[in-house]
Amino acid sequence: MSASQDDIESFQEKHNPNSDAHLPRSVPSLGKRSDWRLKSFVTLALTILTSSQAILIVWSKRAGKYDYSVTTANFSVEALKCAFSLAALVRIWKKDGVTEDNKLSMSFDEVNVYPIPAALYLIKNLLQYYIFAYVDAPAYQILKNLNIISTGVLYRIILKKKLSEIQWAAFILLCAGCTTAQLNPSSDHVLQTPFPGWMMAIVMALLSGFAGVYTEAIIKKHPSRNINVQNFWLYVFGMIFNLIAICVQDYDAVMNKGFFHGYSFITVCMVFNHALSGIAVSMVMKYADNIVKVYSTSVAMLLTAVVSVFLFSFHLSLAFFLGSTIVSVSIYLHSIGKPPR
Amino acid sequence: MSASQDDIESFQEKHNPNSDAHLPRSVPSLGKRSDWRLKSFVTLALTILTSSQAILIVWSKRAGKYDYSVTTANFSVEALKCAFSLAALVRIWKKDGVTEDNKLSMSFDEVNVYPIPAALYLIKNLLQYYIFAYVDAPAYQILKNLNIISTGVLYRIILKKKLSEIQWAAFILLCAGCTTAQLNPSSDHVLQTPFPGWMMAIVMALLSGFAGVYTEAIIKKHPSRNINVQNFWLYVFGMIFNLIAICVQDYDAVMNKGFFHGYSFITVCMVFNHALSGIAVSMVMKYADNIVKVYSTSVAMLLTAVVSVFLFSFHLSLAFFLGSTIVSVSIYLHSIGKPPR
Repeated sequence: MSASQDDIESFQEKHNPNSDAHLPRSVPSLGKRSDWRLKSFVTLALTILTSSQAILIVWSKRAGKYDYSVTTANFSVEALKCAFSLAALVRIWKKDGVTEDNKLSMSFDEVNVYPIPAALYLIKNLLQYYIFAYVDAPAYQILKNLNIISTGVLYRIILKKKLSEIQWAAFILLCAGCTTAQLNPSSDHVLQTPFPGWMMAIVMALLSGFAGVYTEAIIKKHPSRNINVQNFWLYVFGMIFNLIAICVQDYDAVMNKGFFHGYSFITVCMVFNHALSGIAVSMVMKYADNIVKVYSTSVAMLLTAVVSVFLFSFHLSLAFFLGSTIVSVSIYLHSIGKPPR
Repeated sequence: MSASQDDIESFQEKHNPNSDAHLPRSVPSLGKRSDWRLKSFVTLALTILTSSQAILIVWSKRAGKYDYSVTTANFSVEALKCAFSLAALVRIWKKDGVTEDNKLSMSFDEVNVYPIPAALYLIKNLLQYYIFAYVDAPAYQILKNLNIISTGVLYRIILKKKLSEIQWAAFILLCAGCTTAQLNPSSDHVLQTPFPGWMMAIVMALLSGFAGVYTEAIIKKHPSRNINVQNFWLYVFGMIFNLIAICVQDYDAVMNKGFFHGYSFITVCMVFNHALSGIAVSMVMKYADNIVKVYSTSVAMLLTAVVSVFLFSFHLSLAFFLGSTIVSVSIYLHSIGKPPR
């Protein structure tokens, strides 16, 4: 279930083509209440999509069908999101005509930052192949919780948004709680991680956090710009950089076996699910922020474990109960600890 | 190391005969600053004594010298504390003469509540023998963290003191953090605890919490009364109820082998240490409160583990690091979350 969170990150940012297609347009005139409802809706969507995604991954692994190329799947997701964005834009153009905010073309000054998040994810994903020389997969899952801290720190530094003291405490607790929930008898391995492993884990966390925060900065810099246009450009560069990843990692396999080798019904479901949750992430970036995204994916991780109890008769550990309690308290503290405006 | 916390609880309340002997007298005239220093001093003393106590227990177990009767040791601790209180009182009488606040005799109305904490601990300690039919020792250590929650709830209900929302959150975190720090691969047993085991654990937590809170109520009801007088009466009843425990549990052993059978140098150190930390608990009750006591003993638990790394080459687990982080955040939140006056 935890493999998913990493996959999600490698699929950058997104948009929802149907139900929400004309939301961005009306956002500036929305009241506080609608704002709050939209924020809640996209957060809930992200949480549900992320956890169902993780469940699909567990399911596909259990069915023994995990022999497709991850890089081609990543590319397919980017392409699908791009198609969704275009479809949504066509609908909007038909309804409202082409305006300054929903036209596809952008000035070079605006578009030149769009490749950065995709490039950061590419570097992070390439690093991932090297870190496994130092840590095993379960230890890597534990180390990935450093993302939470890096996102918080970069959110503060780059977006210059303030978290209150209580919210900082809550964020440390979120990290500790997620890690606690994932503890298992072999987790102590992680403490023996050699120095280069720690360094790489920290660099990867910084890359991932930076990509997320940078995406938010790009999307929020032009609040009136239609989210589908912003997504279109993010996903175009996502496609390009994932193409590079295919060439670096899977060129031979794709040439010999074909692009869609090993794809099953579950794989297609996963690609669609990833595309939709990618769009949900974009929506959260537009209408909420990275902090909400981190909370949302953390809750999704817990939700996945609970659902897995029923679907795959997993057992919940005491560590999971403790971790969930700590994450719940963290969410509560985050909500009551709003900084004074 | 964890056996100690339970032992501590069975040794009720206390006082320091030398350095602090004339503090109570001067308390009413102390300023805010001295108040804070006194509070810090007794809290620090309690933390250090509690953790050194735990280390002595580990040490005595490692040396294989744990075959003395626990009930006679408990009785010795009560007797020693009683002697300390009397010695301190004699010093005070010589210096200041006998006054209303430091005379040993009390009205029946005042003294009739003093047996209650000792009686509650006796019931709890007797229950302890039965709970092991349902849970093993490591699971019992985990379940004992329920004391933290019961103390918080009873503190609120009986002493009618308010904790802020943040402080409540901090208290839940303290419980979760302490439990996390104690997690080990076999901890999941505790989730299989049968219903009667849970009930007994909850009843024991309530008894222990109630005894602590009730002691605070007794001590604070007469703030001008010398703490040594209050301690004397608490310890007299502690001796009586521990005598009952000896009769119930160890009558034959004491009659056949003698009262001090199996006592070693370490045992004597432990008895002295327990007596001193018992007195520190009393001081914390007088000058701080049960919440401070719970935080103090929780930090002592963590401190013990760290010291054990050096003394007994124990290994610290990832769970311990996470638990310590959560407890640290909890302490921070408790301190910034003071309710408005």
